[in-house]
Amino acid sequence: MSVIYDRVALIGLGLIASSMFWAMKRSGLAGEVTGYARSSESRDIAREIGLCDRVCDSMAEAVEGADLVVLCVPVGAMGAVAAEIAPALKPGATVSDVGSVKKAVIDAVAPHLPEGVHFVPAHPLAGTEHSGPRSGFAELFDHRWCLVVPQIGADRDAVEKVEKLWQGMGALTGEMDADHHDLVLAVISHAPHLIAYTMVGVADDIRRVTETEVIQYSAAGFRDFTRIAASDPTMWRDVFLSNKDATLEILGRFTEELFALQKAIRDGDGEHLHAYFTRTRAIRKGIIAAGQDTDAPDFGRGKV
Amino acid sequence: MSVIYDRVALIGLGLIASSMFWAMKRSGLAGEVTGYARSSESRDIAREIGLCDRVCDSMAEAVEGADLVVLCVPVGAMGAVAAEIAPALKPGATVSDVGSVKKAVIDAVAPHLPEGVHFVPAHPLAGTEHSGPRSGFAELFDHRWCLVVPQIGADRDAVEKVEKLWQGMGALTGEMDADHHDLVLAVISHAPHLIAYTMVGVADDIRRVTETEVIQYSAAGFRDFTRIAASDPTMWRDVFLSNKDATLEILGRFTEELFALQKAIRDGDGEHLHAYFTRTRAIRKGIIAAGQDTDAPDFGRGKV
Repeated sequence: MSVIYDRVALIGLGLIASSMFWAMKRSGLAGEVTGYARSSESRDIAREIGLCDRVCDSMAEAVEGADLVVLCVPVGAMGAVAAEIAPALKPGATVSDVGSVKKAVIDAVAPHLPEGVHFVPAHPLAGTEHSGPRSGFAELFDHRWCLVVPQIGADRDAVEKVEKLWQGMGALTGEMDADHHDLVLAVISHAPHLIAYTMVGVADDIRRVTETEVIQYSAAGFRDFTRIAASDPTMWRDVFLSNKDATLEILGRFTEELFALQKAIRDGDGEHLHAYFTRTRAIRKGIIAAGQDTDAPDFGRGKV
Repeated sequence: MSVIYDRVALIGLGLIASSMFWAMKRSGLAGEVTGYARSSESRDIAREIGLCDRVCDSMAEAVEGADLVVLCVPVGAMGAVAAEIAPALKPGATVSDVGSVKKAVIDAVAPHLPEGVHFVPAHPLAGTEHSGPRSGFAELFDHRWCLVVPQIGADRDAVEKVEKLWQGMGALTGEMDADHHDLVLAVISHAPHLIAYTMVGVADDIRRVTETEVIQYSAAGFRDFTRIAASDPTMWRDVFLSNKDATLEILGRFTEELFALQKAIRDGDGEHLHAYFTRTRAIRKGIIAAGQDTDAPDFGRGKV
């Protein structure tokens, strides 16, 4: 593949930014990639492992002359970062982000960007339970979706160039408006994460069951929840606070359904339970058919 | 390893029984293994794939002369199966089971067993989302726990022989009383399964999000829930109906915690959320350290 941007700046050097760097390098999509992280420890690690062509000690230095600047910081930090980089942005540059929430990010970032700079919000639906500059790898986005949320009146060339970059990094791309994005994500990501966090917290809390028992016997189902409940706490705090309405709506709906199933258990209504459990099986088949998960037993977990 | 039982009968030929057969063969733990399944289709499949040394067309034929009979049927069917095999059991034989609930199984099975037959309830904490006679494999129990729930006054030799069999099939064994077993399982297996079923059902229900969206974008967290929500509906219906009290208790506790987190989201209490999410991260580390899950990103899912 050929170079899409001569210079790309990555602000924040966690799982997504580091995977973007390796994915861009894999296919030669960027001339030079600069990087900045707030913590000097992260910058040192980045230099040590060769993450980014040039690691900068200030945001302004990293974005100077960049054709594309990607904000890869927690959602709650996006506004302050946008304000800080704005004076250093090259005219005609594109700013994008990878935040898990779109409306709040747009509200926080857009007002700071100067005239003539294109803003193309995006969200790659990919991740692992690991975080930090060492956690990235080039294949993270392969066959995963990246949702792009163009603004009204956006420059189509700028939007399409961002989409081409994501496709070059292995992703499928789609466009969506911010409100719909935030609702879809509440259903397939934010509510599931909160529920996983809650279940893991409950298991830790039941005094009559020891932590050793929870840990030793987790293969009976519990451990599947712990992967996403091990995700970065700062990132997820910001997600819930900034996608509050949609998340609370889905959680409300979840509670209603859970109560209906609890009542079926209490009443001994086996037919209701069986019908419900049969329906949910079909959805997994769809996910496997769509290439979004593996059919190997146990997710193909190797020997552990 | 050497033969532990001359003849073993497996009643029900699903994931657990078929994995037991392959695990026993791997280490030469049983002389002859007979098998019976209610559906003639399952018996035909078993014969086709060489599952069991001898597939029988009646339960009585399968258990005749067996030193160990293992009930591998849904929890709700255990009582009827025990009643049917009782007259054909060899004096001095051991009857065991692999049910996910222990108190209800003991209440259903024990009254049917003749004097001189040993009953050693057990529960291997292992499984995958697949079911049926083709789903078994010899490694299923390796490094997994099998909980044995000896009855008061049980013959220790009979109990230890069952434990030796499980150890021979690769499992770690532990003993527990039935009530504690059912509470521990409610926490680490039954409540998580119901919650996963509920979350998958909710996603399927939200009309403003299409099924295609749920499926395509599931890698953002949702798909981790779908594995256990694809488990056998009949097995799980019976589990919830027969471990009603403990499951409802844990679900009640879960709802309380979920409401507290919802309130923190509504109130914008980021500190509460961050502290909660930090605590749950530690539990996953314990599970990995205990060899019950893999530290590879995404459970080590291969290319999908």
